[in-house]
Amino acid sequence: MSNPPSAPDEHAFRARILEAARTQVRRFGEAKTNVVDIARALGTSHTTIYRHFRTKADIFDALAVAAMQDEQEMASRFVETDGPVTERLEGMVLALHARKRERFATDPEVYGLYRRIMDERPEIIAAYAAAMTGLIARILADGVRRGEMRIDNVEAAAGVVRDAVTVFVHPAHVAAAVAAGLPSERLARNVVRALCAAFQAGVELDGGGDETLKTTARSP
Amino acid sequence: MSNPPSAPDEHAFRARILEAARTQVRRFGEAKTNVVDIARALGTSHTTIYRHFRTKADIFDALAVAAMQDEQEMASRFVETDGPVTERLEGMVLALHARKRERFATDPEVYGLYRRIMDERPEIIAAYAAAMTGLIARILADGVRRGEMRIDNVEAAAGVVRDAVTVFVHPAHVAAAVAAGLPSERLARNVVRALCAAFQAGVELDGGGDETLKTTARSP
Repeated sequence: MSNPPSAPDEHAFRARILEAARTQVRRFGEAKTNVVDIARALGTSHTTIYRHFRTKADIFDALAVAAMQDEQEMASRFVETDGPVTERLEGMVLALHARKRERFATDPEVYGLYRRIMDERPEIIAAYAAAMTGLIARILADGVRRGEMRIDNVEAAAGVVRDAVTVFVHPAHVAAAVAAGLPSERLARNVVRALCAAFQAGVELDGGGDETLKTTARSP
Repeated sequence: MSNPPSAPDEHAFRARILEAARTQVRRFGEAKTNVVDIARALGTSHTTIYRHFRTKADIFDALAVAAMQDEQEMASRFVETDGPVTERLEGMVLALHARKRERFATDPEVYGLYRRIMDERPEIIAAYAAAMTGLIARILADGVRRGEMRIDNVEAAAGVVRDAVTVFVHPAHVAAAVAAGLPSERLARNVVRALCAAFQAGVELDGGGDETLKTTARSP
C-alpha cells in the first residue's frame, strides 16, 4: 500500500480529473460523460476517481466552480489595477462578457453544463454572486477614496452594479444575445457609464437596514 | 353551412380558446394539454380549434404573447400617468416585477410555459423587448420635456433601463430570486434610482451610430 498523497499531490490530481472530465464533456457531451471514461483517460480506475469526488455530479459542479473561479481571478485584476475607477469597472464587465462569449463560441458543451448548474445549484451561484459583489465593492470603495465617486453605501452600490450588468454576463443571456446579434459591448458600456455617472453625482440607495451592508467608506 | 364568423366573433372565440388552454395547462401541465381536451372544454371539435390555430404550439405561443400584452398594458399606464418621471419608472419596474412574482406563485404551470417560450422563441421576446423599450423611451422623453432629465439619446437611455432591470423582470431570474429569498423590490428600486440619478446628472451614451436610435428630445 502506498502512503496517503500529500496535499499538493491531491490538489494536482483533482485538477487532472477536472481537465479529463472537461475534455470528455467537450467531446461527447455531458450526458455521455461517465466516471469510467474519465478514469480511463487518466490511466486509472473509477475507484480512484471516487476517492476524490463522491459522484459524477460533484465533478460537474467542480467544473462549473472552476470556471467561476477563473472569472473571479480575471475580475480581481481590475480591482488591483491602478487607474480611473470608471474605466476599471467598464473593463471588468466587458472582460466578463467577452469570456462568456468566447466560451459559448468555442466550448458549447462545457457552456451548456455551466448553464445547467446556474439553473440548478443556487448555492453555487449565491457564492459566486457574493464574491463578484465583493470585487465590485472594492473597486467602488477605491473610487470613493480617490474622490471619483460619492457613495454612502458601497455595498448597496455594488449590488446595483451586480444586478444591472447580470444581463451581460449571465450565460443564458449571453447565448441569447449572441444568437440575436445584439451589440452587447456597446449596451454594456452604456449601462456601466450610466451607473458611474450616478455614483459620481451621488445617489441615495436603500441598504435595507441591514447593518452588515453599511460601510464607512465615504467621499472625503 | 353557416356564414363565416365576423371579426369580433373570431376574436372572441380565439380568446375563449386561449382561456380554455390556460385552464388545461394550469390543471394538467403543458405536456398533458392537448387540442382535443381544449375543444372538449369548449364543447366543440378539435377541427374547429384548428381553424383558429395551426398547431398546439401556436396556441401556447399565443398564451405567452397574451401574458406579454397584459404586461405591456400595465406598463403603459405608467407612460400615460402624470407625475415625476423617476416615480413612474420605479412604479413600472416594480409593477412588472410584482406581476411576474404573482404569476410564479399562483400559476406555476403557465409560468413554466412562459419561461420555455422566453428561451425558445427569440422573435417573440425581441418584439416584447422592443415594445417595452418604446414605453420606457416615452417616459424618459417625458422626463426631458418636464426638465427632470438631461438625456441626449433617449433610445439609448431606454436601452440602458431595459437591460439594467432585466434581472428583476425576466421569469427565470424572478423564480430564482423568490427561491433565494432576495429582497428584489429594494434591489430593483436601487437600480432605478441609480439610473434616474444618472439621467438627471447627464451621461454620454453611445447610440451605436445608428441614426434610427437618435432622437431630438433634449433638455430645454
